[in-house]
Amino acid sequence: MRSLLDIASLSKKEVLNIFNLASNYLIEKKDDVLLGKNIVIGFFESSTRTRISFDLAVQRLGGKTIQFLSQGSSISKGESFVDTIHTLNQFGIDGWIIRHNHALAPSLVASETQLPVINAGDGSHQHPTQAMLDAFTISRHLGDLVGKNILIVGDILHSRVARSEMDVLSLLGASVGVCAPGTLLPKEMKIATYFPTLHHGMQWADAVIMLRLQKERMVSGIIPSEDEYQKFFGMNEAIVKKYSKVLILHPGPANYGVEFAMECMNYENVLVREQVKNGLALRMAVLKHCFV
Amino acid sequence: MRSLLDIASLSKKEVLNIFNLASNYLIEKKDDVLLGKNIVIGFFESSTRTRISFDLAVQRLGGKTIQFLSQGSSISKGESFVDTIHTLNQFGIDGWIIRHNHALAPSLVASETQLPVINAGDGSHQHPTQAMLDAFTISRHLGDLVGKNILIVGDILHSRVARSEMDVLSLLGASVGVCAPGTLLPKEMKIATYFPTLHHGMQWADAVIMLRLQKERMVSGIIPSEDEYQKFFGMNEAIVKKYSKVLILHPGPANYGVEFAMECMNYENVLVREQVKNGLALRMAVLKHCFV
Amino acid sequence: MRSLLDIASLSKKEVLNIFNLASNYLIEKKDDVLLGKNIVIGFFESSTRTRISFDLAVQRLGGKTIQFLSQGSSISKGESFVDTIHTLNQFGIDGWIIRHNHALAPSLVASETQLPVINAGDGSHQHPTQAMLDAFTISRHLGDLVGKNILIVGDILHSRVARSEMDVLSLLGASVGVCAPGTLLPKEMKIATYFPTLHHGMQWADAVIMLRLQKERMVSGIIPSEDEYQKFFGMNEAIVKKYSKVLILHPGPANYGVEFAMECMNYENVLVREQVKNGLALRMAVLKHCFV
Repeated sequence: MRSLLDIASLSKKEVLNIFNLASNYLIEKKDDVLLGKNIVIGFFESSTRTRISFDLAVQRLGGKTIQFLSQGSSISKGESFVDTIHTLNQFGIDGWIIRHNHALAPSLVASETQLPVINAGDGSHQHPTQAMLDAFTISRHLGDLVGKNILIVGDILHSRVARSEMDVLSLLGASVGVCAPGTLLPKEMKIATYFPTLHHGMQWADAVIMLRLQKERMVSGIIPSEDEYQKFFGMNEAIVKKYSKVLILHPGPANYGVEFAMECMNYENVLVREQVKNGLALRMAVLKHCFV
Repeated sequence: MRSLLDIASLSKKEVLNIFNLASNYLIEKKDDVLLGKNIVIGFFESSTRTRISFDLAVQRLGGKTIQFLSQGSSISKGESFVDTIHTLNQFGIDGWIIRHNHALAPSLVASETQLPVINAGDGSHQHPTQAMLDAFTISRHLGDLVGKNILIVGDILHSRVARSEMDVLSLLGASVGVCAPGTLLPKEMKIATYFPTLHHGMQWADAVIMLRLQKERMVSGIIPSEDEYQKFFGMNEAIVKKYSKVLILHPGPANYGVEFAMECMNYENVLVREQVKNGLALRMAVLKHCFV
Repeated sequence: MRSLLDIASLSKKEVLNIFNLASNYLIEKKDDVLLGKNIVIGFFESSTRTRISFDLAVQRLGGKTIQFLSQGSSISKGESFVDTIHTLNQFGIDGWIIRHNHALAPSLVASETQLPVINAGDGSHQHPTQAMLDAFTISRHLGDLVGKNILIVGDILHSRVARSEMDVLSLLGASVGVCAPGTLLPKEMKIATYFPTLHHGMQWADAVIMLRLQKERMVSGIIPSEDEYQKFFGMNEAIVKKYSKVLILHPGPANYGVEFAMECMNYENVLVREQVKNGLALRMAVLKHCFV
């Protein structure tokens, strides 16, 4: 029994083992490894696809979920978050799946409860299951990722997904490139491979991961305008067609018309729906990894 | 396996078959026709009785429900609705029950997913299961509806229930009369039998279906005043008593004191609670019709 | 089959029987006394710990829960509350667990439906299961409560918990003392044992129940200031240590830094987490008491 809080604590062997389990769960969709176990799905931040896929994953493994969704505001204070955790913990809980807007909240739950905790996204820190399901999806098409070129495009600065993607892709031996306006790159980040526009990056990449762009960042002046962003960093039909050998992913939900044109969804090299499907299998695999 | 999107696509024989199934489910409250099936209850508009009755109906047939309730606003855009559908569809879904404020949203789900979809109310278009449960409730008292006089009272213009009621009652051979202020009648509608006040209609009717009146329509000036509406179109204790042979229905939730006086609930010819009970059996029957 | 609406309707023998059942459920965590039964969890007021513990309690006894949470405003009117009850009641319901901001709402449900109803908190009237779980927790440490001194501290005036605590503790033979600012005491209440500060009360008490203080009462001027309240009525580390033989309870959620310092949680005589754990067993016992 162990937690999954970030990618850094996983070995390459462990990740590949999780991918193997996930491949099996794409075929054999049920298991009983969580039979008799009660898992709290504690989402202190809104979500639909991640929450529902974890909920289904627990159920398909024979476990029961207790959903805790914060909606009031009292929960947002540090003290009452810990209090809520301890309260639920008195009810015979076997593990936790936590999403929270504060980085490291899942680690706090792990240390307070001494139970396995899966990080389902914490602040702008990590989102390890999303990163693994993306890497898993790419590896289903490209095989071993050693030496493969993977490009991450967009809002690196605020994205917990980007941080986890870089960690897991590097761990698996891929070369990670970055493509974003300078204002969306963290200053402290060491970037080996940088592309000033998406067109430059597409020529280099075997696979591209597009990140969601929050529109409020345009309003706040970090990005000049939607048009300009789209022109240099947006995925559109022409690019998808021109680079038909390059795999294109988006962790969703996409901002259609901003970083991603809706028409792209119709092409075979666009794997957005396959990501969602693989997500369920990958999360079942992570649960087995943590709870068995 | 087939969808139920509107009444128009049903034959009389199919409706009567659904009524037969519903009669059985009033006695035998369990079945296993949905065993192993996952049905999404996707309600993009608020509801309690319809949602809970569908939820129970699926469970009593042995199926599992995945509840998806839109609460954020991003879901209201056309694109992200389709996106949400496709996301959930990756999780091994067997069918959909959809309520949406846009007409034809359930048809869109059916064409996008190629799965059975039940329309639980779309915009001011159709609400076929409500109409069928009302017709079913009347037929439990009156038998064959051929030649029976059924009166629909109130806000015909904005009501998806009214549209579906007219369709199903006509299909079953009933004569449908209408009673409403002129401002609440659709201009394009061909009305054979019209009554200017509820008193006129009660003398003609074997059964009456009262429609919910949105109070904001009074504010907007479509209806002169609550008092005046009540006087000519409202159901009250005196009318219920005077026409004790006429069945009185309301799809609920009733606006007590507007179109329906609360005291009416105590009379035997008022079938409001029987409608709710029959609703569960009828929805089980519709699910069996669609999924077997 | 019977309801639990308040403490007054219970005999001492019944309460002790419920405690016995709860003791067993702390060891044997499952039972089948609700097999095949559908219980509505109707919470018309926000709650997490009480709602989740009732939900788990029903499930561990083999029953199914139907959750009804009011979020819209239409439900707050008297008529539609009754309507909602009757609607759900058509679906083959076996019992109700009700929380409502109006006193006596659970009694109304009992008389309208003729089914067993458990009061999970109604207005500032009663919260019998909270009171019983607190008395149960004290009796697990002190044994028979006859002649024991139990102090209730804080907002007696607005607290349904306080009213139920006094009832159940008196029924079990304890002496109940009260400690609160005069503005937070009900004028009509006959108080035998009163302490003007927490320090005075601690010297007398075998166990202390701290009540949650709503901060808005300070704003409204009923209480002079947070600092002053804390000084005379707040539990802090020094008091917990000094009176290490006195049991300290709080029904939660605590207002840390107001009536309860967070550091107190680390001491053995503070039973807050044990209360939560006992709450689940006690509610299972109450369900068995009502439904068997």
